[in-house]
Amino acid sequence: MSIGITGTGSYIPTNVIPNEAFENQRFLTENGTPFKYDNPTIIKKFEAITGIAERRYAQKNMNTSDMAFFAAEKAIEDAAIDKETLDYIIVAHNFGDIVSGTSQSDMLPSLASRVKHALRIENPHCVAYDILFGCPGWIEATIQANAFIKSGLAKKCLVIGAETLSRIVDPYDRDSMIYADGAGATVIEERTIGGEILAHASATYTYDEAYFLFFGTSYKESDEDAKYIKMYGRKIYEFAVSHVPAAMKRCLDDSGIAIENVKKILIHQANEKMDEAIVKRFYKLYNLEMPKDCMPMIIKNLGNSSVATIPTLLDLICKGKLEAHNLVTGDVVIFASVGAGMNVNAIVYKF
Amino acid sequence: MSIGITGTGSYIPTNVIPNEAFENQRFLTENGTPFKYDNPTIIKKFEAITGIAERRYAQKNMNTSDMAFFAAEKAIEDAAIDKETLDYIIVAHNFGDIVSGTSQSDMLPSLASRVKHALRIENPHCVAYDILFGCPGWIEATIQANAFIKSGLAKKCLVIGAETLSRIVDPYDRDSMIYADGAGATVIEERTIGGEILAHASATYTYDEAYFLFFGTSYKESDEDAKYIKMYGRKIYEFAVSHVPAAMKRCLDDSGIAIENVKKILIHQANEKMDEAIVKRFYKLYNLEMPKDCMPMIIKNLGNSSVATIPTLLDLICKGKLEAHNLVTGDVVIFASVGAGMNVNAIVYKF
Repeated sequence: MSIGITGTGSYIPTNVIPNEAFENQRFLTENGTPFKYDNPTIIKKFEAITGIAERRYAQKNMNTSDMAFFAAEKAIEDAAIDKETLDYIIVAHNFGDIVSGTSQSDMLPSLASRVKHALRIENPHCVAYDILFGCPGWIEATIQANAFIKSGLAKKCLVIGAETLSRIVDPYDRDSMIYADGAGATVIEERTIGGEILAHASATYTYDEAYFLFFGTSYKESDEDAKYIKMYGRKIYEFAVSHVPAAMKRCLDDSGIAIENVKKILIHQANEKMDEAIVKRFYKLYNLEMPKDCMPMIIKNLGNSSVATIPTLLDLICKGKLEAHNLVTGDVVIFASVGAGMNVNAIVYKF
Repeated sequence: MSIGITGTGSYIPTNVIPNEAFENQRFLTENGTPFKYDNPTIIKKFEAITGIAERRYAQKNMNTSDMAFFAAEKAIEDAAIDKETLDYIIVAHNFGDIVSGTSQSDMLPSLASRVKHALRIENPHCVAYDILFGCPGWIEATIQANAFIKSGLAKKCLVIGAETLSRIVDPYDRDSMIYADGAGATVIEERTIGGEILAHASATYTYDEAYFLFFGTSYKESDEDAKYIKMYGRKIYEFAVSHVPAAMKRCLDDSGIAIENVKKILIHQANEKMDEAIVKRFYKLYNLEMPKDCMPMIIKNLGNSSVATIPTLLDLICKGKLEAHNLVTGDVVIFASVGAGMNVNAIVYKF
């Protein structure tokens, strides 16, 4: 018996926001003072580091759970299963639904309940819940689905990552340009043939790291108490390039697969330079150079959509939409992520 | 090998709010019109139905994750385990941390990460995440911990339910009197002797029921777009008295335990009349009368603190703080809950 992905789906918002859209934005330092260089310079530097040229934002009338539903519909269709046979719907997110123009997170009911409602599933034994685990939420939810199937609790699970980061960014913060919206979904099933999860690893670092990503006030002084996603970029970079390669190695060694047999690394699309540094460091742990084309990236056009980046990337590859990247039966990939918590995780997956 | 609870802890806020505190509150109908009877009448009727005479609110400087931490500390001490040996910290909640006087939910990082940070746990392999599953969140997190242990992912899990509903109530809504704050925690472990989870059942009803509990605007007309916890009380009552007894029966029958051997039913403290109707209906499914003293209640003094009610009730019983209710080795209890989602679940537990 193996446990594997039998269907993928994603929802990529139609609203394209190019870097030029930020040219007249008033960016401030964390002290509330203006930068000493102009916006074109800020944007050029931003693009060089993150690899982001444009990102997608959800339409105003759309919410996180709507995008989750669209991705879920496609994954169910792709898996060719009867939706009523699902045992679990797990939605990974970090901010709930946020109505455009407001700041309150709405998670009552859970996003998983909303998705199940929208899917018109009647079966009450399909249990729907949300998990909050930072950007690594989709991988962690997949690990949970795997555990439920392994323990006999479930046979089929729908695992979704969906986020609307555009609703939670401080427009005065340069880092706001990183964030994007999107949703990706997968169906995970117990089956006798096909792909399977070979190994997984998870870790939560909180002793010094818990608040590297946090909810903070705007860089623009204001009487409002609204909070936004904030981060200590430098600390996160140093954390990620040290802890993610180690988790990936632990996971790969646990799987029994040789590094030479890893075809692709599907890494959370956080920041291109950081992602490259992580993967280079990972290969260095095996005294190897990072192979060419081993790391498919979609951050250039889609930005960082948190929990949605990996399932979206996977869906695009599986549907043949990424040139130069294809996956066939027997190929081994590593999923790896890092984010708020600070959480790190990885899965070694054989197609 | 059995999987059971080895430690309990709870945090009961010190701020006591008696029903009289609402005597001068301006209550409105859902149409924004005043009631035709005065507040003492409203309060008397409220108390007769819900059984609530007073409730506890968190101090202004305290948040959901702080209460979760206090309960967790006690559960770890009670279990007499080294905190560094925990494999999981799971926090069930529905609104995150909400700073007193504000309306935004703060879940960045997750509450589980905050609790782990506050506990000063260094071990990164202790994975911390949050689950959103309405009021039945603590039971569901316990079921997840059970699955992780069963599947070989974990040996020791800390499972917490914590909520600050006082921060999310519409003061113009009579239902606001139901809600309370609190936290309860348990340590769940694999072991060779002692109590064990015999069976569990979960269900999510969303087809018609997803929005029986929802996030809605104030009954007082206003330009603000802040939202509050809202419910269709009558629909929830009808739903609960039908679906909760069925889930309890499914769970008990699955455990192989005879109804006569069930000593206590620890039910989510939602509303006394509703809880009584559920338990009566449950016994009726076995053609039995509800036994006297089978249903310990703490709602009179603590109100409905969502995910915190059952672990708090359990902790008070285990610590000998509830007269007329005690549990000894071999006693069988049923945990049962119902809430937003709409979710229903139950556990049959043998001490």
